[in-house]
Amino acid sequence: MSSGPHHPTPRALLFDVFGTCVDWRTSIARQAGELGRRYGFDGVDWHAFADAWRARYQPQMETVRSGMREWATLDVLHRESLEDVLTEFGLRLRPDDCDRLTLAWHRLDPWPDTVGAFVRLRRRFIIAPVSNGHIALQVNLARHAGLTWDAILGAEIARAYKPDPHVYLRSVAALGLAPREAMMVAAHNGDLAAAARCGMQTAFVARPVEYGPHQSTDLLANEGVDLAAADLMALAELLGA
Amino acid sequence: MSSGPHHPTPRALLFDVFGTCVDWRTSIARQAGELGRRYGFDGVDWHAFADAWRARYQPQMETVRSGMREWATLDVLHRESLEDVLTEFGLRLRPDDCDRLTLAWHRLDPWPDTVGAFVRLRRRFIIAPVSNGHIALQVNLARHAGLTWDAILGAEIARAYKPDPHVYLRSVAALGLAPREAMMVAAHNGDLAAAARCGMQTAFVARPVEYGPHQSTDLLANEGVDLAAADLMALAELLGA
Repeated sequence: MSSGPHHPTPRALLFDVFGTCVDWRTSIARQAGELGRRYGFDGVDWHAFADAWRARYQPQMETVRSGMREWATLDVLHRESLEDVLTEFGLRLRPDDCDRLTLAWHRLDPWPDTVGAFVRLRRRFIIAPVSNGHIALQVNLARHAGLTWDAILGAEIARAYKPDPHVYLRSVAALGLAPREAMMVAAHNGDLAAAARCGMQTAFVARPVEYGPHQSTDLLANEGVDLAAADLMALAELLGA
Repeated sequence: MSSGPHHPTPRALLFDVFGTCVDWRTSIARQAGELGRRYGFDGVDWHAFADAWRARYQPQMETVRSGMREWATLDVLHRESLEDVLTEFGLRLRPDDCDRLTLAWHRLDPWPDTVGAFVRLRRRFIIAPVSNGHIALQVNLARHAGLTWDAILGAEIARAYKPDPHVYLRSVAALGLAPREAMMVAAHNGDLAAAARCGMQTAFVARPVEYGPHQSTDLLANEGVDLAAADLMALAELLGA
């Protein structure tokens, strides 16, 4: 990458996590399916179940972003939306199983390139999640997936949800950096656009099956993104790590 | 250790850092001495300089604890107190060198047992600092000292300084744990007493030369501390890690 005044080598790489580092769809479908089979539920499309659960994610966070409700962790939001999804699919689970299934979002598997790329990237850069996942979720997820972060930043320290600029700005400030010294890494152009508006550098990582085989959005980086890579290993290569 | 209802095996070990994990006195004396020699300062006792700087630490944090001033990071507090120490020692540094020397607190060396013990402890427990150091300081310190944390908790996420109970309680809550599920590890009985009042388990680690060869306080654990160990490797042993 160029490293003139407009693109100084970043000191920190700040990562989106769901979709960018870990494969939530396959992981949620598997865990929900395992639980469903114990209940004897037949003929359920568990990938559709995962998609339906995820589809409630943005509207729910919007209730926080709009000020309609106080900031609450994703455990709270995921638990509430699980009830709706179960109703939509005509399924019933015991409340304690709902609680346990909510924590499936703490146990998502990494994409095949993530763990190796993190080892390389962390040698050269400070790396931290700037995710909408709260601290406990990110701690559990990192231990499950074999990731090593330098700190857990993101929604909880800002008590706000991306793309609220406070999440990016509070995270960068927590590292004692200016926005230009940090690079947001995400598989989602909307996340990168919001980070860029805060003055951060941006890197797009392609995750063309995050939403399944028929994904039609976020297949390519939008114009204005600083770097684009096929996966995190390719990003490490581009950054000379 | 016993693991009855009063002493469940902790899920997380939360660490004091300055003195408990790293040797601030030797590290500050060395870095201040290196800078002082470049200025040609002669005959300065740099260990006394480190002690004088550290002596201003509690009174300064007290201005935050008492509500006299808003929460400010240790970089701000250390930078202010450095001026006083330089005056006391009759020394003058350029402002940019004062800024750089302030960051010596981000580059403290670990005690000889710390790094090895952390590798063992992290296999079995979530480990995080609950220190008065802010996130940027802890990130830099961990990278300098070769420590790997699961998250950076402590003063900054609570915007308060230990022994304010909010620091302990906010840190435990960020992990989604009850206080009894977390164990505070420190070389300072006062820190452990405050953690115990919040309901945490406590482990004392002896650092008998933290304050130099004539240290007279915190040589032994006070009554009521749950575990006492000669160093962090001995603590790993006691905890079966």
